[in-house]
Order: sequence, then C-alpha cells, then structure tokens
Amino acid sequence: MAAKTKDLTGLGGDYVQSLARGLEVIRAFAGHTGTLTLTQVAHITGMSRAAARRFLLTLNELGYMATDGKTFRLTPKVLELGYSYLSNAPLPQIISPHIQDLAAKVHLPTSAAVLDGPNVLYISRASGTRLLQLDITIGKKLPASTSSLGRALLSGLSDDRLKQFFETNKTKRLTPLTKTSTDDLLSAVRIGRTDGYWVMDQEMEIGMRSLAVPIRDKDGAVVAAINISHGAGNSVELMLEDLLEPLLQTKASIEEDLKGLEFSL
Amino acid sequence: MAAKTKDLTGLGGDYVQSLARGLEVIRAFAGHTGTLTLTQVAHITGMSRAAARRFLLTLNELGYMATDGKTFRLTPKVLELGYSYLSNAPLPQIISPHIQDLAAKVHLPTSAAVLDGPNVLYISRASGTRLLQLDITIGKKLPASTSSLGRALLSGLSDDRLKQFFETNKTKRLTPLTKTSTDDLLSAVRIGRTDGYWVMDQEMEIGMRSLAVPIRDKDGAVVAAINISHGAGNSVELMLEDLLEPLLQTKASIEEDLKGLEFSL
Repeated sequence: MAAKTKDLTGLGGDYVQSLARGLEVIRAFAGHTGTLTLTQVAHITGMSRAAARRFLLTLNELGYMATDGKTFRLTPKVLELGYSYLSNAPLPQIISPHIQDLAAKVHLPTSAAVLDGPNVLYISRASGTRLLQLDITIGKKLPASTSSLGRALLSGLSDDRLKQFFETNKTKRLTPLTKTSTDDLLSAVRIGRTDGYWVMDQEMEIGMRSLAVPIRDKDGAVVAAINISHGAGNSVELMLEDLLEPLLQTKASIEEDLKGLEFSL
Repeated sequence: MAAKTKDLTGLGGDYVQSLARGLEVIRAFAGHTGTLTLTQVAHITGMSRAAARRFLLTLNELGYMATDGKTFRLTPKVLELGYSYLSNAPLPQIISPHIQDLAAKVHLPTSAAVLDGPNVLYISRASGTRLLQLDITIGKKLPASTSSLGRALLSGLSDDRLKQFFETNKTKRLTPLTKTSTDDLLSAVRIGRTDGYWVMDQEMEIGMRSLAVPIRDKDGAVVAAINISHGAGNSVELMLEDLLEPLLQTKASIEEDLKGLEFSL
C-alpha cells in the first residue's frame, strides 16, 4: 500500500499536489491484473473515496482510464507516458538493440536496468526463448540488493555509501541462499569490482541464476547494467564459460556507442 | 504543438485540471531527444512559463524529472507509469510472448497494436534481426490509415463508421503510393475482410512492407492487431507465401489464450 502523499515543504506553493495524487492513482493499478473498484483504488492510495473518484474520472475523461460505471482499468494510452521517456532518453535507445542482439545470440533473456532508489528499474529487455520466460517488463522494479543488475549498479557507489545503502534498505530473504547481512552484501558487491562481473546464484529465486556487468559512460560513471538470465541446471563455471565473453562484448559495444553522445546522461 | 487543456464541462467541478496539465508536461518530451528548457516546455504545451515551471518542479520533486537547474529531462521512473498498464492489462501479457516467438521464427520484426482514436498505439514489439531495425517502441502512435495494423483494426468497424473515420481523419500522403481518398481506403480495408489479412505495400515508407491480421476476442470483437514488417525487395506474393502461415498460426494461438480470460477486454 502506498503512503499518503507527503507535504513537500521545499517547493512550498509551487508543489502541485493534484498531479502527485493523480499519478498515484495510475500507479495503484500496477500488478493488479484486471479491474479495480473505487473502494480498492482509495484503499491502495490511502485517499478518500471522493478524492480517488475525482482522479479516476479525470483520467477517464483524458482517455487513460476505462470504466463500466462500477470498475476501472487503465487503457493502453498510459503507455504513451512511458514512451515519452523511451523516445526522449538516449540510454534505452542505445542499449535496446544491443541487448536484443545478445539475447538472439545466447538464446537467453537479457535485461538492462538503472538504479531507482533501493530498486533496479528495467529500461529494456529481450527474451531469447520461451523456455525461460521471465515476468519482467520495462518499468518493473525489483530490490537492487538481490539482483545481479543491482549489485553491478551499486558497485559505482563508494564503500561508505554502499554500507549506508544496505543499512538503510534492509534486504528481504527471498530464498535460503539470499545474502541479507550488510557484511555479506558488501563483500558480494566488492568481489565483482575485482572480477568485472556479478553472478547472482539463486538468491532471488531457486533455480535461477544471472550474470551482470555495469555500463559506464565516457567519464567512467556507472549509468546502467545489463545481464543474462540462466537456469541453475549446470555449474556457475560453465555459465561463465558460455556467457561472460558475449556479455562483455555487448558491454563494450554499448560503451562505444555512449562515447558518441554529446550530452551527459 | 499540443492544444491548451480544454475545459471539460461534463465533469464540472470533479475535473482535476492540474493532473491533465502535469501529464501534458510529461508528454511534451516525447520525440525530443535530450533535454528541454522551461521555455521549450511552455511552448510545446501552450502553458505560461510560470505554470510549466510548477509542473516541472513538482515532477522533479516526485522523481520523474531531472534538472541541472537550467534544462529538464525525464527520468526512467516515468516507465513505471507505463508498467502500471503493462502489469495490469491482460492484452499485452497474453500477446507479447507470442509475437516474440513469431519474430524469432521469421527473423523479422513483429508488433502488436490497438486503436487509439485515429492512431494505432503499439502495445508490444519484438525485433527479429537488426538488419531491419524499426523505430517503433511500446507506446508509440502512428496514423491508423497508413498502417497494416491500423487497417486490420479498422476492419472491425461498420462501413458507415469506417467512412466517417476516413472523412474525419484525413490521411496524409507519406509516399507516392499512399492511398488518401476515402474510396481507396474503404476498398483497402474491405479487401482484407475477404482475404483475412492486410498488406501495406510502401504506403508508409518506400522500401517497407508489412502484413497484418486482427486479433478477436471470444465474442468476435477486434481487440488488437499483429503484424510482421518486411523489406520490399521481393514480390508481395513471395512475402505472403513465407509469412502468412506463421502469422495466422500466431493469431490462432493468441485467440486461444484470450478464450481463457474470465473478464472482458
């Protein structure tokens, strides 16, 4: 359940609370397949029914929401908002074709993500085969600490900030293999700094492994991470033998393209 | 340039204009690669600089916008809005794996779209190969009348509504082959009703063909369309020979999956 919109003192009179709350109503539908009632939307957002109703009806009028009079669902027009970012930002435009190539080459799902607070946020993905279909879509968030993408992204932080990150954002145990202590997580991020890659071995889901590398801009800053997902049927060594080289090649191609950018990310 | 937000009399006091205008500010960035200044955003949205500034600063506070103090750009967090739809609506969840399979099989880009006013709106895509990379992303819109997906989608309308559609939404000539008269466009939609498929032969872009079929729900209503894009190097007959059968198989698989849905789209 989302927290109530907080009062932002910094912006004072310039802060448009109606915009914040309207966006919360759109987000209330994430992960709920099918329709929601007014009562459900009010419950998820923590708004009064009267407030939720005004936002739902406004979104309906604008074409972002459909209703049969009783229940509400988002329309595909909501995708146009995400498209505003996809067609505006250079990062997904540069990365997407490369990870699609990689997925086609290794016949496995590939993803690209950025850090968004304590989470990784997927900005692109490609599925290599349906045998290993992942429930990951563009715009989805997952905890950074239990994701190979997350550890690769976090490697860009200083050790002090990293420690603070793990202490502030407690890691939830998802499998018996999930590392949860700050010391273990710090080690896991540091090891990859030496190796140049991060392996997540069934810490997110039993039977699933992934291999990630960070993407750096021309100034060396970590701006994204890419990974390949793999089942845990064989050894980690075999996975590295098969997948590390193509993943590093893709990283090099993306970083080469990023060098051509005239503006900062 | 977007029109100013109109006053919606139907909703009266329930209409939240700040939400409408804030969403317009997000949409102002679509298609503009890189950053925008306050002046540019005000110009694109038709708002005053003071109003545009309030929405930009609020979006910045909410994490959807980044700024260096002078220029603004959307952050990947905007994708979370689109994800609300993708993770909520059954249509893209059902269609996406099938068109990914199809792209892998035919080694060509595939797409799925729905009708959104006079446009087709892409809800899913898969690229079969980089040799034919299309500038089409989820959430993108294109005029329905010059798209094979659009003609397949429009085939669900009655002839009267179809005629009205083409007379209301004048078709822009994109190539010397673009059909623009209402009579020609009506014929183009009707022919596909008999054939069961629609071919777009270089009417959108010289050198590009596509082949589309509609997706129907269990009540027979057209709810989406899928297509394969192809270069115009060979004959249309050869394209049909190669691609119609796999496209129809994919259509059948999707429609079979849609039958399992308990709620309407």
